[in-house]
Amino acid sequence: MSAYFSEKYKSLTPYTPGEQPKDTVYVKLNTNESPYPPSDRAIAAAAEAAGKLNLYPDPECFALTSKLAEILGVDREEVLLTNGSDEILNFAFMAYCDESHPAVFPDITYGFYKVFAQINNIPYETVPLKDDFSIDVTDYIGINKTVFIANPNAPTGLALTRDEIEQIVKSNPDNVVVIDEAYIDFGGESAVPLIKKYDNLLVTQTFSKSRSMAGARLGFGVGCKELIRDLNTIKYSTNPYNINMMTMAAGLGMLEDEDVTRARCAEIRETRAYTLCELRRLGFEGADSETNFVFVRHPKLDGSTYYAKLRENGILVRHFDTERLREYNRITIGTKEQMEKFIQVTEKILEEAL
Amino acid sequence: MSAYFSEKYKSLTPYTPGEQPKDTVYVKLNTNESPYPPSDRAIAAAAEAAGKLNLYPDPECFALTSKLAEILGVDREEVLLTNGSDEILNFAFMAYCDESHPAVFPDITYGFYKVFAQINNIPYETVPLKDDFSIDVTDYIGINKTVFIANPNAPTGLALTRDEIEQIVKSNPDNVVVIDEAYIDFGGESAVPLIKKYDNLLVTQTFSKSRSMAGARLGFGVGCKELIRDLNTIKYSTNPYNINMMTMAAGLGMLEDEDVTRARCAEIRETRAYTLCELRRLGFEGADSETNFVFVRHPKLDGSTYYAKLRENGILVRHFDTERLREYNRITIGTKEQMEKFIQVTEKILEEAL
Repeated sequence: MSAYFSEKYKSLTPYTPGEQPKDTVYVKLNTNESPYPPSDRAIAAAAEAAGKLNLYPDPECFALTSKLAEILGVDREEVLLTNGSDEILNFAFMAYCDESHPAVFPDITYGFYKVFAQINNIPYETVPLKDDFSIDVTDYIGINKTVFIANPNAPTGLALTRDEIEQIVKSNPDNVVVIDEAYIDFGGESAVPLIKKYDNLLVTQTFSKSRSMAGARLGFGVGCKELIRDLNTIKYSTNPYNINMMTMAAGLGMLEDEDVTRARCAEIRETRAYTLCELRRLGFEGADSETNFVFVRHPKLDGSTYYAKLRENGILVRHFDTERLREYNRITIGTKEQMEKFIQVTEKILEEAL
Repeated sequence: MSAYFSEKYKSLTPYTPGEQPKDTVYVKLNTNESPYPPSDRAIAAAAEAAGKLNLYPDPECFALTSKLAEILGVDREEVLLTNGSDEILNFAFMAYCDESHPAVFPDITYGFYKVFAQINNIPYETVPLKDDFSIDVTDYIGINKTVFIANPNAPTGLALTRDEIEQIVKSNPDNVVVIDEAYIDFGGESAVPLIKKYDNLLVTQTFSKSRSMAGARLGFGVGCKELIRDLNTIKYSTNPYNINMMTMAAGLGMLEDEDVTRARCAEIRETRAYTLCELRRLGFEGADSETNFVFVRHPKLDGSTYYAKLRENGILVRHFDTERLREYNRITIGTKEQMEKFIQVTEKILEEAL
């Protein structure tokens, strides 16, 4: 830290992203990426855009926003695209939280919420998940704070129903409720249709998981026009050209291939069922997941040992060294072949350890 | 604006980007873009990266940062890449300005500085340019505020020397001085070598102009390691994966083609000389420019009329409707062919108007 760094930020603890190894020797099951490349159409569109990079991109993202709104069944003015969903989440913390509107979210969830609160100097509190890692909806009814809920939640993989989300939104009319649906395409019910009914609901999603575009950075928020106008004010006051031309083109290409996305999500769900079934056969415990990862522990194998052994064997998963989570590992669902290898390696590790 | 928008931001006036027409009927001389596409190597690298978008990009931008540091003659830890230079400028306002460190910048300069100050709730003051639109260095000597200077300045096109910049940096040891060198490759002396001598100097640059990558969004800051560490803390607390994989690849491609960039900058400077010479022949007034644009007025032709007439004739330039600027237009230097057309059209407009 320099002597010049503002007092405001001196105590910040930044977010730690999952490892991105620079070599490719690992089977990467650690950051919930898609194992499939973008569709051919998306790749071709991005490549074509690369030839026109001397021009600024359209700051309104008109074509992409229009197509996305059509798919979501909302109006164009109800959608805002951002440089990954981290950006729209940060905008939401900026726009809807302050001293009189503190933030609230589960104690176990996406680790970045806490950081967004800190950097924006926003008071926040966390609500413990139940013992089974599920969210107790009653905790959030009429809580009168700006609510952030990942649905399905990470790293637990568990989802609330749309009815439960609606109860939370309805009971907090003086605060915005943000539902972070990064994993919604792998299970659970999206709250997007509720934005037509509630002006205090913002739903965020990403192209990083189901649409195979983590490397392109594309996320978005869906809410009533007034909320989207607020968030546009933040965008045009920080980084109007927040989305580059190639990402915009690739995003549009993927949206024109929704059948590809749907087929791949079905494939991931099938491989997820296979993986959980095999893991349970080997003695692992973990709930059914609505996401593209599973969250499991083994009663006879320490979480960090299992993580280290997998790594030695060329497989990267994500281990969180915090009190309630350290027995567990979060394992991204890859291709069927990758998960077969993962199961084989796990069997070997268990044989050696037990 | 929604009823939920935080009081903090209710009075924000966002930045207004230059027009980005969705059709291509215009000769676009309004947003200081390069008239040349990125190099073939850059385009090919971006296209190749598009096939791997399912993986997250390297949040450290290791390869690109290393190459850029090598070209700049600094260490890797003295460089931070961002999603366009607007992002690094916003980070600098966040990190180095607060109630006790107000911001200061010229009254006529990049219009976004004011907006960055406002969104971060930072007090700021502006210092008038001299009558000839140049910066009076003595205004900034020992000013004891966080200084932001675009060098060369926009929309004036005028530059301070490195010695003048050094005087400002040296005389304000308790504050960071930010030198925004978006246009430095077209003229003027970069302050980058001074970062080895002063720990309160941050220099920002962009790939948008000289490196033909406005559409890719790539900017960067250069400063001592401690400053870069501060700015990384902000990055990892807002958007760790701020640069997408295709932009990173294209950026590296362009850096491997520095000879292409140099040749194109030389070409732009030559075309700039031609354009200014022709404009002066037609009675326009305006100083020599160190950038890829010229800033001119005609004693007998109103600035907004000239803008509108050019537009009617398919040529877009930038007109600022503010007191000291409204007689002028800012005209980006395109290819020789584009500028010949621009001069022809201007001659026609003058014939009709006078």
